[in-house]
Amino acid sequence: MKYYVMTLFPEMVRQGLNTSIIGRAINRGLLSLECMDIRAYTTEKHGHVDDYPYGGGAGMVMQAQPVYDCYQDICRRTESAKKPRVIYLTPQGKTFEQKMAVEFAEEETLIFLCGHYEGIDERVLEMIVTDNVSIGDYVLTGGELAAMVMIDSISRNISGVLNNDISAETESFSDGLLEYPQYTRPEVFMEKRVPEVLLSGHHANIRQWRREQSIKRTCERRPDLLDKAVLDKKELELCKKYLPIS
Amino acid sequence: MKYYVMTLFPEMVRQGLNTSIIGRAINRGLLSLECMDIRAYTTEKHGHVDDYPYGGGAGMVMQAQPVYDCYQDICRRTESAKKPRVIYLTPQGKTFEQKMAVEFAEEETLIFLCGHYEGIDERVLEMIVTDNVSIGDYVLTGGELAAMVMIDSISRNISGVLNNDISAETESFSDGLLEYPQYTRPEVFMEKRVPEVLLSGHHANIRQWRREQSIKRTCERRPDLLDKAVLDKKELELCKKYLPIS
Repeated sequence: MKYYVMTLFPEMVRQGLNTSIIGRAINRGLLSLECMDIRAYTTEKHGHVDDYPYGGGAGMVMQAQPVYDCYQDICRRTESAKKPRVIYLTPQGKTFEQKMAVEFAEEETLIFLCGHYEGIDERVLEMIVTDNVSIGDYVLTGGELAAMVMIDSISRNISGVLNNDISAETESFSDGLLEYPQYTRPEVFMEKRVPEVLLSGHHANIRQWRREQSIKRTCERRPDLLDKAVLDKKELELCKKYLPIS
Repeated sequence: MKYYVMTLFPEMVRQGLNTSIIGRAINRGLLSLECMDIRAYTTEKHGHVDDYPYGGGAGMVMQAQPVYDCYQDICRRTESAKKPRVIYLTPQGKTFEQKMAVEFAEEETLIFLCGHYEGIDERVLEMIVTDNVSIGDYVLTGGELAAMVMIDSISRNISGVLNNDISAETESFSDGLLEYPQYTRPEVFMEKRVPEVLLSGHHANIRQWRREQSIKRTCERRPDLLDKAVLDKKELELCKKYLPIS
């Protein structure tokens, strides 16, 4: 997978992703990440990339020209016949979710476009953007953190990136339920004991306890997820017990 | 506002937030950010902070002791009488949204706890965490990016952080609708013209055009937001025109 990030803050993206699992995957050649400085493409003599919005209003709008030229440069570098998808990070986009992370992980190249200020001139967005994506219903100062979140989440679904492929599968959302609580050594921490069943060595009981905990948690914290979860008859009964009365 | 981030990757958080608007607000003394290295608090002689999960399963779980001791150290530093809120970034949390950003911005101190691997021992979470928060329905390799997203979003609501206070208010979600498209110079970019109304100087018409564009966009891209938006009778009629037939 080749990632390109079009941004006014290339260092922020580079540094924020060079730690931990994603950084290791880049070093091992499983991923590549190029952070393109939009400012380097402006033809404005003072290096400006933004200007006042037509029609008035607070803030500045990023101009079309440097964004378009930056995009053209990336297209020249990616030699694939197919035009790569261009993801614009915007609160006006489709809400990002795990299914999209899995889907995007199948692409060969992804281009992320990060806006700043009051956004980007609509005309260049119409010309180059294939996907408008939002990471959630909140406002950020720019698209950089959102691009980093998407890259992290997508990369975990690329084979070899996680040391343990099982890990990505057994996690939250993969089966539509929230994850069960986890415990590790010591057995007693400040007078709190690990639940007995986890020490029993009885695998079927452990599996059942964990499944029940997942259902309980989903009922209590995110009942909206239950519609899409696959539950048997007995588990549906269990939900009635845990669901807040509505 | 004082932020404390408990993490295994303090550099990542520090560097990812030191650019742009948030970095400037820190330099101007409006915010402070302390990234606490959980690893520095382990009493394990080899410096380990994780161990196998009780009951088996893939991955490692972060141990209670270093997390608890790191938290105690922060409590000693914050001299406020009231215990600060501790936000655990987890897919099992309540979904973060703009209203929560505004609410959190009123606190004096916020502590973020970032998990890694398969999570953190449940016992220490029960002891210290006041808020379980998720930034969206997708899985990340750790809580760091989620904490950075929350800090960015919360900080924008602290007075003085944005140069222009109007900015935070006229933006997406503030009135329950998506933002209208923006345009800036030049008037013609690759044969595409700026909409005439924006060049007219007629403020009432511009306001109306923008409002209609916001409604159109919300209908097309995020009809789920309409329930909470405040619309007059004529605007409700407009929605019928733009809403996808269902």
